[in-house]
Formats: sequence, structure tokens, C-alpha cells
Amino acid sequence: MAGNTFGHLFTITTFGESHGKGLGVTIDGCPSGIRISEEEIQHDLDRRRPGQSRIVTQRKEKDRIQIISGVFEGVTTGTPIGMIILNEDQKSRDYDHIKDSFRPSHADYTYQSKYGFRDYRGGGRSSARETAMRVAAGSVAKAILKRIGITIQAYVSQVGPIRIDDNPENHDLSLTEENIVRCPDPKKAAEMEELIMATRKKGDTVGGVVTCVIENAPVGLGEPVFDKLHSDLARAVMSINACKGFEIGSGFEGVKMNGSEHNDKFYTTKDGEVRTETNYSGGIQGGISNGMPIYFRAAFKPVATIIQSQETINKEGKDVTIEGRGRHDPCVVPRAVPIVEAMAALTLVDHYLMQQRMKI
Amino acid sequence: MAGNTFGHLFTITTFGESHGKGLGVTIDGCPSGIRISEEEIQHDLDRRRPGQSRIVTQRKEKDRIQIISGVFEGVTTGTPIGMIILNEDQKSRDYDHIKDSFRPSHADYTYQSKYGFRDYRGGGRSSARETAMRVAAGSVAKAILKRIGITIQAYVSQVGPIRIDDNPENHDLSLTEENIVRCPDPKKAAEMEELIMATRKKGDTVGGVVTCVIENAPVGLGEPVFDKLHSDLARAVMSINACKGFEIGSGFEGVKMNGSEHNDKFYTTKDGEVRTETNYSGGIQGGISNGMPIYFRAAFKPVATIIQSQETINKEGKDVTIEGRGRHDPCVVPRAVPIVEAMAALTLVDHYLMQQRMKI
Amino acid sequence: MAGNTFGHLFTITTFGESHGKGLGVTIDGCPSGIRISEEEIQHDLDRRRPGQSRIVTQRKEKDRIQIISGVFEGVTTGTPIGMIILNEDQKSRDYDHIKDSFRPSHADYTYQSKYGFRDYRGGGRSSARETAMRVAAGSVAKAILKRIGITIQAYVSQVGPIRIDDNPENHDLSLTEENIVRCPDPKKAAEMEELIMATRKKGDTVGGVVTCVIENAPVGLGEPVFDKLHSDLARAVMSINACKGFEIGSGFEGVKMNGSEHNDKFYTTKDGEVRTETNYSGGIQGGISNGMPIYFRAAFKPVATIIQSQETINKEGKDVTIEGRGRHDPCVVPRAVPIVEAMAALTLVDHYLMQQRMKI
Amino acid sequence: MAGNTFGHLFTITTFGESHGKGLGVTIDGCPSGIRISEEEIQHDLDRRRPGQSRIVTQRKEKDRIQIISGVFEGVTTGTPIGMIILNEDQKSRDYDHIKDSFRPSHADYTYQSKYGFRDYRGGGRSSARETAMRVAAGSVAKAILKRIGITIQAYVSQVGPIRIDDNPENHDLSLTEENIVRCPDPKKAAEMEELIMATRKKGDTVGGVVTCVIENAPVGLGEPVFDKLHSDLARAVMSINACKGFEIGSGFEGVKMNGSEHNDKFYTTKDGEVRTETNYSGGIQGGISNGMPIYFRAAFKPVATIIQSQETINKEGKDVTIEGRGRHDPCVVPRAVPIVEAMAALTLVDHYLMQQRMKI
Repeated sequence: MAGNTFGHLFTITTFGESHGKGLGVTIDGCPSGIRISEEEIQHDLDRRRPGQSRIVTQRKEKDRIQIISGVFEGVTTGTPIGMIILNEDQKSRDYDHIKDSFRPSHADYTYQSKYGFRDYRGGGRSSARETAMRVAAGSVAKAILKRIGITIQAYVSQVGPIRIDDNPENHDLSLTEENIVRCPDPKKAAEMEELIMATRKKGDTVGGVVTCVIENAPVGLGEPVFDKLHSDLARAVMSINACKGFEIGSGFEGVKMNGSEHNDKFYTTKDGEVRTETNYSGGIQGGISNGMPIYFRAAFKPVATIIQSQETINKEGKDVTIEGRGRHDPCVVPRAVPIVEAMAALTLVDHYLMQQRMKI
Repeated sequence: MAGNTFGHLFTITTFGESHGKGLGVTIDGCPSGIRISEEEIQHDLDRRRPGQSRIVTQRKEKDRIQIISGVFEGVTTGTPIGMIILNEDQKSRDYDHIKDSFRPSHADYTYQSKYGFRDYRGGGRSSARETAMRVAAGSVAKAILKRIGITIQAYVSQVGPIRIDDNPENHDLSLTEENIVRCPDPKKAAEMEELIMATRKKGDTVGGVVTCVIENAPVGLGEPVFDKLHSDLARAVMSINACKGFEIGSGFEGVKMNGSEHNDKFYTTKDGEVRTETNYSGGIQGGISNGMPIYFRAAFKPVATIIQSQETINKEGKDVTIEGRGRHDPCVVPRAVPIVEAMAALTLVDHYLMQQRMKI
Repeated sequence: MAGNTFGHLFTITTFGESHGKGLGVTIDGCPSGIRISEEEIQHDLDRRRPGQSRIVTQRKEKDRIQIISGVFEGVTTGTPIGMIILNEDQKSRDYDHIKDSFRPSHADYTYQSKYGFRDYRGGGRSSARETAMRVAAGSVAKAILKRIGITIQAYVSQVGPIRIDDNPENHDLSLTEENIVRCPDPKKAAEMEELIMATRKKGDTVGGVVTCVIENAPVGLGEPVFDKLHSDLARAVMSINACKGFEIGSGFEGVKMNGSEHNDKFYTTKDGEVRTETNYSGGIQGGISNGMPIYFRAAFKPVATIIQSQETINKEGKDVTIEGRGRHDPCVVPRAVPIVEAMAALTLVDHYLMQQRMKI
Repeated sequence: MAGNTFGHLFTITTFGESHGKGLGVTIDGCPSGIRISEEEIQHDLDRRRPGQSRIVTQRKEKDRIQIISGVFEGVTTGTPIGMIILNEDQKSRDYDHIKDSFRPSHADYTYQSKYGFRDYRGGGRSSARETAMRVAAGSVAKAILKRIGITIQAYVSQVGPIRIDDNPENHDLSLTEENIVRCPDPKKAAEMEELIMATRKKGDTVGGVVTCVIENAPVGLGEPVFDKLHSDLARAVMSINACKGFEIGSGFEGVKMNGSEHNDKFYTTKDGEVRTETNYSGGIQGGISNGMPIYFRAAFKPVATIIQSQETINKEGKDVTIEGRGRHDPCVVPRAVPIVEAMAALTLVDHYLMQQRMKI
């Protein structure tokens, strides 16, 4: 494997650069008989799309998805699903200002060093535009999860220092899409929006946290000892551009607790279901889902592209100053919500199919 | 892949249960010509060994490593390296008290549900005893890294609420092994030790954080977009028992920052080396190492085994009370330090070999 | 992995059906800095194209390749190369006659049974049209092999009972492309052509053998014990539609020999090169290339589509008669030559990159 | 993957050298609840064991299997199964005569070249002794197949020029184990035995063919387009030492046929089962099992070790003469039968588990 394939049994391979001819994804291993459509996939893509609100980048990209293969008469055939988005405007804008320079905290220097050569237009392969194809593939994964009954909902729980209550159970997640920040706490959402707008005005950016809740996952998903469900989720989510941290259940806060307090007490419901009273485990024990809601948090750094002049070096190692320009995201988390959901959906479907093998 | 193999080109497969005949690991893909010995591997294992100090479990396990294959006249042959540790005392101690019960926040319930059946003796496969084989394999990985010049050093940076300064550069890491906590700040180490001893006395446990620093990694390691170096590190480290969180560089704290502050400014040293003034990126940009030190933090929850009576349910779903007994770790982080190092070493070697393929 | 990905480090994933929107392939792991162009790839595709001569199917398919990603300014960037061929005429021709019937020795019945559902148009995913993308990917592989110095040449060595001398050294392989059969023996080629034309006239088909010679492969390619170079070649070649047999070196004939005769005697050339006097090993010993020419033979059955009426059953299990129609290949081997070369090239590049990892 | 792992979901990793401390195998992905025992595995190993009859090598190796992990109370737990065979006599016999020389048609030269270094004792890793672990793992695979109802039977169909009727249906396979050649035709078996004994007397060796029949495989196994059931079988079988050819169904003979004759006509049995009148497809169509018996043939070259003096070169490239000695197999096929069965069983189980994932 060379880095652009994700998953063991439900495997996706993405390709495409920010300013090349287009982007694409292949899904291999999708079971047959799943009803999918370009419309539904487009709906998920639109949640990630630039220009959707005033707090995200104002670039205009329609991101029209086309299904090339694997679907016949509206239903998956079990053969690989190929999908592409053609870039509408490939005209190379003027990239001379960054062509030979390494933008700070971008991947310019590392791509140049690794490959000896890079497509510098808009970040090339390192652009977050690649994640559009993850969302498209995630949309297919969600169609499978829907059939199984698993739901995935992500939301913004922090922007800069503004943070909502940590416990997902204290929020009405149906409110998430009601505001452009995608935060289920309307009051905090307004504050976050204000902060983002103020940050944009300064030509600056700010970080944030996305929390994700997975419900109704059956007991038994996860493959110890290396493909534990949470370690695979960590890898999946940390592969999203700008993600710097991942924690499941009690996470970093949990280290302060004692075992006597942190242990999740089992009990049996009247319906005979096994549950735990608390859920510091975050729905996963020993790397395997235990039937409780799975929740995790992902930290996103402030976007590296700022509309300010910055000092850096060029390919020759000489000092240069680059000017920020263009239309970029002041804060990545509102658009990261559907990407986190997609990566979680891809991971869950993969583990679900994996667990099927046991049933002989 | 079914969960017990780690790595793409330097792949390890571990096997074995806590109280079975033994534990083992196979390393496939180790380059030939590396000098390794049972003595060196044993030395690393001894850092993970129970009973090494008064703040870890007092179980007596010698954990004698045997190399079965892949080494001839002291040198690796390029063929798979098989290693085993035979369990000395397989006599089933009395496990009747937990045989049919699900210990809170252990993997008893999830293993039972996933596999329909489990080896309940000492946690079976879910026991942290499995990590001994990771340390053994990591020791071989370190021998390769040594030749390349990469060093890896982990240390305890937090126990419960006691936390040292976050910046690894502010510590003399050579002091880490000077105390039994494995914390490079001697004063804080003493406090941590005290806390752990007090916690043990109560029959309780407490969590902690391990920080890891990787130095002299060449520029160019990491395979975007899914096998980014940090997402693979995240998966590797989060697969260690009790690990609940992972963050690289600025991590969760970084979300509060602005891009103008968080961006790591490039400069060229007098020797012509490219460096960054700050290192919020944690040595990785766009998923690829940039030549700066790589550092990450891993959160470990309080160990689930406590020496207190706990209420839970049994296989029939009935309420039962279990008594804690045996000799367990009051805090996992001192022994987790070599395991974190091992997983980091395995990840780095894997990516190093991966990058070699490019050199045609 | 779910069946549509080939290779470990130079991995290709194909997608697309015979009569869907199009076909595509993603190449992941291609080193950067390789010069490739749509023109060169098209040239290879044209050798596989229908309608190229009077002994192949007369279908008209232009098979225009488009590179979507991974190439910048004519050179590979190290990121995934996406390529597509859009199907020009997706208008569903009339497939009512086979929609519900299982054509004998086709994949209709097995696809229907495996997936519960199938794209019946022109064989859907099971159509040999999929191999166009293997040829496209193989063209990129060849560009890498060219740089290394490895050459691959396949040719037709048997059509029906007409067979040429087995030893590749007895033929001038530069004559292969001089005739439409792609057989380096002009006299036998004429006989083969005559047989194919006579077979077509009867609405029938006939089988054949493709021999392949790989020269200048360095010593050391192949990963024992399961990814031996010849076992990976076998899998690669046997995955081509209609392939029923594979043999390397002395193959099935060699079983009649004695070891004293079959053993390839080593000697050193005046230039200090190690060679063997005979080459019954076919250039591979213990699964690893030994520097001698690698040669293998692949058997192709007679194409299942015949222009005759045939009895079979339909989805309900009832007896039906289907009429052969359309324009199909009377013999697959002339067009199989570039496909065999492509699969060999993909295997060789993959193993070459694999071997690079050893060089630490 | 680095060459020593086989399988996607039922993965085995073998390790160990001919004259090291021992050999081992790890099976990852074995479903839980399968009853296995050292006795049953030993029984399969004994069919491969040296010294079992007068036509195989007279070396004495007990090959005592030990299960280290993954089995609890006689039943698989779903965790990795580790097994080892300790070499009883590691005393290095005198290998000075071959230590620096390259035996013709052995892997001495290629291992030395690939790894720069080799364990020369008894062929090291390239020894067929490694296949003992495949048989052990295959024994576990067979226990799973037994539950599903799939049976696998291999037998010797050719030794040197002596060949039995090709059609497996014309033989009573229960006779296979009745003679030491493992050929179901008693008369031909006697001839074969005579030929082998005569060959041994001359210090020479002879090749042979193993045919394998798989019955009751369900329709639907195989993952087009690259992991077709027969291409995976080809790779599996061709990875066995000394194997030079593989053919399925009509194989190389089928190329002489016309499509009208070769096509397998479908019909429905009175019980509603779909069958084909002929079975030139060998039970696989489009890479997927069609419910008919699967049969294939594997060609094995004459063993390279002969008890004659041979000219070759040494590590310095100088001409040397080596004397054959020791106790070796005059013909490999009688002992290859259980190895072929093992590789077929491993492939079938792997594909069976793979197909399970579809059932959502």
C-alpha cells in the first residue's frame, strides 16, 4: 500500500490534485444491492463545499460528482465504484508568488523534499480539496450503515477558546445543522461565529474541535490487537488535513481520574440489554465496541493560509516574504464536520464487514 | 489482515495469551545484516517487566526472550525473525471469581460477545502482557534506527493531575531513567511517585501521559494521504492497552491559537539546513517528516483492575460483586514508556523502508 | 483488499464496466520523476484495441485515455495517477436475448450468484474490456522498467494445435509485431492466421498460448516464501480473462526430466558475470530472479462467445436457446500479448520497488 | 507485506530455517469455536514427514507440533494461533562443502545475492522444510472447511513420463493413500514407484504432477478481477518449492479446442441445482466458483539435490566441484500431495471468509 488507500475490506483509493483535471475515488468491496445516487452523494458534498456560508472560504467550486462505474439501475453491483469530480477551472491562476517558496506550516517543503518535485498549484495533492472524495465515499458508507442502523453525527464543540459542554448527551444534536458553525449549542454557536468573523477580518485563522458520536454500533466491532476500533478511528481522523489530536471517551481529561471512578459499571436493562452506567470508555473496550455510544474528539489547528505577509525561505534556501492572498477558510471545523463523519463511516463499515467473516 | 499484524514493509505479527503456553512475535521484512542479540532485546524487555520497582505490579515474570529464526551468526538474514517467550507458570491460578463475570472497563464483555468464547485467565489476549512482544520487535526496529541515526525517547510527563512543562526541549531526557517513574523532572518525579504509592495504598489506580520525542528522522517520511506519518503513529500508539488519546505538536492546546502565531517559520541554518523557528507542527507537515524533532503525547487511563470490590454483571446478565485481588499496576505509564518507544520505532522503520522504494 | 487492487508497492486499482460510463485505473506508489504521456499510453492501448486487424473483433472502440492526476508538466509527481477511458457509446444495445440467460462458460451465472444482481450489458465487469486499464497502467510500469533497463516481450507461440519451437532464444522477437498474429515465426504466423480466419468463418473460436520473455532483470527480485517472483507472475497472468494455465522455465515438460539433466550449471563469464549454461529454471531460483532471462508461457482457452446457437438455462433454471451475435474475437491471443506484457511489467516494477527497501 | 504472509482474512505467517532452532507459523483471522488439536495437525504433518516410506528421503525428523496460543480448552478463541516445531538436532552437520558454493538449481546464489548473506545450513529458509508449517496451518483450514462441507483431495497423477488418465472422475480417490506414491491408479502407482526407486539408485531425481480436486465449494467464491479464485490458487500452489506450472480445468490442452466444444453447457438437475455437462472450466468461471468440482494440476520439477558430483562456482566465481551427499527425495510429488492440499485449503478458507463480508 502506498498511502492513498484506506480500509481493509471496504477500501477506498483517492486520487487528484487541487488544480489538475479532477479528483476521483474508487471504492472496492462495497456489497451489492445498496441503493445509491449522485443526488445523495452530492448532498453530502454540499456540506463540505466552499462558499456555503460567510464563515468559510468564498471560493466557487461546484464539485459535481459523477458515478462512473459499480452502479447499475441505481443499485451497487458489488464491483468497484468509480467516482470523479472534474475541476471546472483548471486555468492556472498566478502561482508565481509561491511556486518556489515554502509556505509556513504547509506541505510545500515536505512534498518538495520527498518527491523532488511538486505540483505547486493550490497545494496540489496536499490540498484539503482531496477530502471531497472521502466525503463522496463516506456517503456510500453511510448508505450501508443506514441499512444496519448505525448513525454518525459530528459537530463543532470548540472554536479557539470557546468550548461547549463535553458530554454529547447534554446536547440536542438535531440542532447542529441549524447554524453555519455546526455547533448544537445555539448560544455558543453565535459566539463562535462572531470569533470566526473577527478572525477573518484580521486575515488570520483559528483552530477548533469536532466531536463525533456513533450510535447503535453492534457489540463486537474492532480487531485487536492492532486494528482496535479506536486506533483505526484515530488513524482515519488524524489523516484529515490540519488534525493534530484525537481522543476517545475520557481522553486526556481521564488521566486525572482514579480507576474506581473511571470504571464503567455494567448493568442489564429491563429489556435484557447490557449497558454501562457511565461511558468513560467511549463505547469501546479492549478495542471492541461494547454497544454503548462511541464518541471521540478531534483537534484541528488554525489553518496555515493567512492573509498576511509572512517571512519564509525559497527552494534555494534564501529568505523571502510571501503575501497571503486568495479566499481561504478562517476556521476549518465547520467544513470538517462532514469529513470527520465520512472517515468514521468508512471505518465503521470496514469493521462491520470484517466482523461478518466470523460468521461461519 | 485480521488485526494482529502491524506495519506495511516491516511487519510484525504477535500472538499469545497471558496465561497460555507463551507469547511470540514474527518480524517479516527486516533487512539483512542487522546485528541483534537476545541480550539487547532482553534489556528492553526488562524496562517493561513487572516487578522492576515498587510502583509497578509485583508479579514475577522473567520474560526470557528466545530468537527462533531469522538470525544467523548474530546477524539478521532477511528472513522472518521468530521470537517467543514461554510462560513459566501456566498453572491456572484460581480464576473462578471472574470466569463468568465481566470486570468493569476490561475487555471481558467485548471479547465474550465478539468471539462467543474467551480465555478468561488473566485477560487472555487482551492482557497488556501481549505488549512484551511489541517491545521485543521494537528492539529490533531500534537496531535499524540506530544505524540510520534516528533516536526515540519517551518519558512520563503527567501522572494524575501532576504535570511537567510541555516542551520537551526544556528537559534533560537523559534523566528519564534515573527514577522509577521515568520522568525527566526529578522533583515532579518524586511527587508522582508519592501519588502512585498513595493510590496503590487505597487499592486504586491513576492515569498519566507519556510524551515521546523522535530525533534525526530524515525529511520525507510519511505516505499521504492516509498513511501520514502522524496518523500511523496515532494508530500505533492508540493500539496500546489503556491509551485513550494522542496528540502531535500543538495538539489540543493548539486549537486556541491563531494561524499567525501557530505557523512555524522556516529558516536556513549556517550549515544550509532547513529548520523552523517554532515547532507547533511537531516535526510533521502534510503527513511527512520535515527534519525537526517529532513529538507527540499519549494519554493513558487509570488501570481498570483495582483492589476494591465492584458491582457488575455475569454472563447471564445477573448482578454480581467481584473482589479485586492479585498484584496489579497502580499506574501504567512508567511501564508504558518502553512500549510507546517500541510502537514509535516500528512505525518509523516501516516508513523509512517505504521511502526507500522511491529511490529508483 | 477486495479484488480490484494489484500490487504491494506499485498498486493499481481498476474500475469500470464494459457498457457503463467508462473505465478507469488508479496507480498508487509510482515514484516521482517518471516522464509519461497520454500518447505513449495510447500506443500501448492501440495494440490491445478491437478492430486493429481482420483476425480480431471488429467492434469499434477508440479507447481514448485521459490522465486525470498524478502527472504535472509531463512528469509523475509521486501522487496517485488516475486515468480514465470514457465509453463512447453507452447506448444499451439490445441485450434482451442474454439479460436473463447464462451464456455457457461466461461469468453470467457466477456473477449473478455471487452478487445477486449483475450488469448484463456486454459482460459488465467480467468483460475483457477491463484489461484496457491494465494495459494503461502497464504502460506506466514499462516507463519505469525502461529506466532500470528491464525489457519485456510477449508473443504468440501457439494457436490451436499450431505451435512454434519452445525456446525463445530460437526466435527473432523483433519480428513479433510484423504480423497480425504477433508470432515471431513468419511461416507459422501465416498458418495461425489461416486457422483463425477459418475458425471465424465457422462462427467458432480457438485457444492459444502466449510466451513472455523478461530480460535484464537484476538478481534479487522476489520475496520468498509466498511472494516468490514466479508465483506472483502466475497470479498476475492467470487473472487475465480466459487464461487457464501458467508455466515457468521447463514447466510441465520439465517433470519428465531427471535432476542431473534439469539442473542449470553455473559459470562465470569473462566479464565476471554469473550465468547458467541452461535455463530450465526460467530465470528464477528459490523464487528470486537470478539474472538470466525470465520466461513463462500462458494458456488461453477458446473464447466463450461463439456465433452459433447454444442451449443453456435462464435465471429461473429453465432451458433456453441463445443465438450468438455481435462481433467477437475468434482467438484471443493476438490481443492478449500486450495484456500479458502489462501484467508482467506491473509485477516486475512492484518487486523492484520492494527490493529497494532492503538498501538501508 | 514482506513475503512470508499468505491470505487476506485467514492469514498465515511462517518463519524458521531448516537447521535453526525451529519453525513456526501464526494464523491470524481464524474464526472462534473451531475444535482443533495437536493430534489432528500431527496427522497431517506425518503425511509430509521425511522417512515415511522407502521412496522419500530417509532423514529422521519427528516434526512434533506445539500449539502456543489461540486455542483454549481445545477450541479456537479467535485470537492468533501460534504453532512451533522445534528442530531436534540443530548440531550443524558438516556444511563446509557447500558453505561457499552455489548448488545448481538451488536458491544458494539468489539468496546470497538478495540478502548479501545466508544461512547455508540445509538451504536455510529456502528449504522445503518450511512447508511443514503450511501443512500445520492447512490442517486448521481443513477443520473449517470440514464444517462448511468442502473437501480437498490431491493425488499424484504423473511421475516422469508415467501419467494417469487426466479426468479425476475416472479415479477412485479413496485409493490415493493406499500406496506410497499417493496415486489413485494402483497399477500406474506401482510403475511410478519402480521408476522412483530406479532413479534413486542412480543418485538422480525425477519430476511429477500433483492433481487436486476440491468438492462442494459453494457458488460465489473468488474476487474478480485480480483475486480470482484460480489466480489465487495459482499463486498459492506455485509458491511451493519446485513447482513450475499450474493449470486449471482444460489448461494447456484446452488451447487446442474450439469454443463450441469447450463451452460447458448449463443444465438444471431434478433437485433444482445448476450444473454443467462438461467441466472444462474446472469449476471456476470469471474467477468465481460455479458449484462444480474445482480441479487443477501442478507441475513439480526434478529435485535439484542429486547424489552425483556436479560442477558449479563458488562465492568468488571460481569453478568448483561439489559432491552430492545426504538423504534426499528422489521425487518430490508423494510428499507434495499434503502441501498442495494445504495451500488449496488455505486459499479456499480465505475466500470463504471474504465472501461472508457480502452478507449484510
